[in-house]
Amino acid sequence: MISGKTTLIAHVGYPTESFKAPMIYNPWFDKKGIDAVVVPMGVKPEDYVAFLPLLFRMSNIRGALVTMPHKVTTMSLVHETTPTARIAGACNAVLLREDGTLLGDQFDGAGFVRGVERKGRSFRSARVLVSGAGGVGCAIAASIAAAGAAHLSLFDLNTASVEGLAERLRAHYPQLTVSTGSKDPAGYDVVVNATPLGMKESDPLPFDVERIAPTTFVGEVVMKTEYTPLLKAAMARGCQVQVGTDMLFEMIPAYLEFFGFGTATAEELRESATLKY
Amino acid sequence: MISGKTTLIAHVGYPTESFKAPMIYNPWFDKKGIDAVVVPMGVKPEDYVAFLPLLFRMSNIRGALVTMPHKVTTMSLVHETTPTARIAGACNAVLLREDGTLLGDQFDGAGFVRGVERKGRSFRSARVLVSGAGGVGCAIAASIAAAGAAHLSLFDLNTASVEGLAERLRAHYPQLTVSTGSKDPAGYDVVVNATPLGMKESDPLPFDVERIAPTTFVGEVVMKTEYTPLLKAAMARGCQVQVGTDMLFEMIPAYLEFFGFGTATAEELRESATLKY
Repeated sequence: MISGKTTLIAHVGYPTESFKAPMIYNPWFDKKGIDAVVVPMGVKPEDYVAFLPLLFRMSNIRGALVTMPHKVTTMSLVHETTPTARIAGACNAVLLREDGTLLGDQFDGAGFVRGVERKGRSFRSARVLVSGAGGVGCAIAASIAAAGAAHLSLFDLNTASVEGLAERLRAHYPQLTVSTGSKDPAGYDVVVNATPLGMKESDPLPFDVERIAPTTFVGEVVMKTEYTPLLKAAMARGCQVQVGTDMLFEMIPAYLEFFGFGTATAEELRESATLKY
Repeated sequence: MISGKTTLIAHVGYPTESFKAPMIYNPWFDKKGIDAVVVPMGVKPEDYVAFLPLLFRMSNIRGALVTMPHKVTTMSLVHETTPTARIAGACNAVLLREDGTLLGDQFDGAGFVRGVERKGRSFRSARVLVSGAGGVGCAIAASIAAAGAAHLSLFDLNTASVEGLAERLRAHYPQLTVSTGSKDPAGYDVVVNATPLGMKESDPLPFDVERIAPTTFVGEVVMKTEYTPLLKAAMARGCQVQVGTDMLFEMIPAYLEFFGFGTATAEELRESATLKY
């Protein structure tokens, strides 16, 4: 129950309609007796630079979950960023520290990698294709590199984004080979859709599914439906898959720790969440 | 349950710890199946002027409950104010209208008056003493004048506040007599504590209770405890009284209508509220 003593975690993005986090965090806070609440705040891009510092001047806020379209902008609005955030080029979490400064971190990629690894697949020495070099694609690529991949192939229509990411990855992981410019999914251990394709019914598939081998693991970031057309097509080919919300549930324990609320397992969070498919 | 589709009502003030509104509105929204939530936001005075316009740039907000210390400042931050707000010199409610403009209104006084009248006492031709000419005191005085009082006596250590209020009242209600400079409670039909005295254990009583007649009605705005030392002393003398939260519960139907959420009775709101004494 919200009161004047409740700690706020802002969930900042635009638009807000498809936000999932409130339905995961808030029931868990209730269950654990933690007096905190995640509050969706729809902030448009043109307002964000002015909004974020004022948000953190509030006396009852501890942090923010940052989502589209603000993850990249946030990098320049906080006082310090973690190495993961810097490689990803984006923040999805901001913590107000006791000294009043803001720390930006990034958990999208960690959630994705943890989810895949908990399904029995390892990224060590793996060949991986990531399509989409927006905030979430960059974060996933950064975490896959950190998890020991041998080769990363990156694709995005925005070549500046994808080349920038490739450069940051090569600089931090000299042993990793990075290629760009193709989204042909043949020959990979893992392929990841980190584009918004699948949000709309009319979207084309993000990959030529015919060229995905049954042994390839297919990961998705779109959360609008549990099994997107890509995942359905991949499963029909016999591929093991990861749904978009797995990334979300798997990253939450990291967030909770970051905000100082202790920790939880993804299963525990799934159980208390009122977000069900 | 909060989601990305939930409509926000910001409860803006500082500090937030003693806020009561979330525990009244939110259970009522739940009970009625209204997808809205009141969220406390602790905004310091030095941030408020920049904060309020940005708050209303959010895509999922409909209005704000404004409390100390921002009620007076709000007058100059909205596009339009109601006559009640202008006489009171303060807003406690802001509505974001469809055209993007902000309307400021004032319900403190209406809640107070409605509560007293529902206890069987009328302000028509009454002689009333109001101590405290801050936001809430001014609002109460404005609503008492509107309810037909014959004489209003106003007291505040801040003489500029009290004289300004007296002037606005005289200008709007030529038939009303207004005096200032005394807080002697003898000879009134109603006396009102609209100062913060009673918030702290060590506070002196706001009036010389020995001089309050048993037939005088004593109203209180302090909500920290249900029966403040003033109310206890008045009751011991046989006076009929109104507790601070009555003003709150009685004004909420007016707020709900203002925000477009339909209406409710104070009893209904008391019943669903998780705020209990």
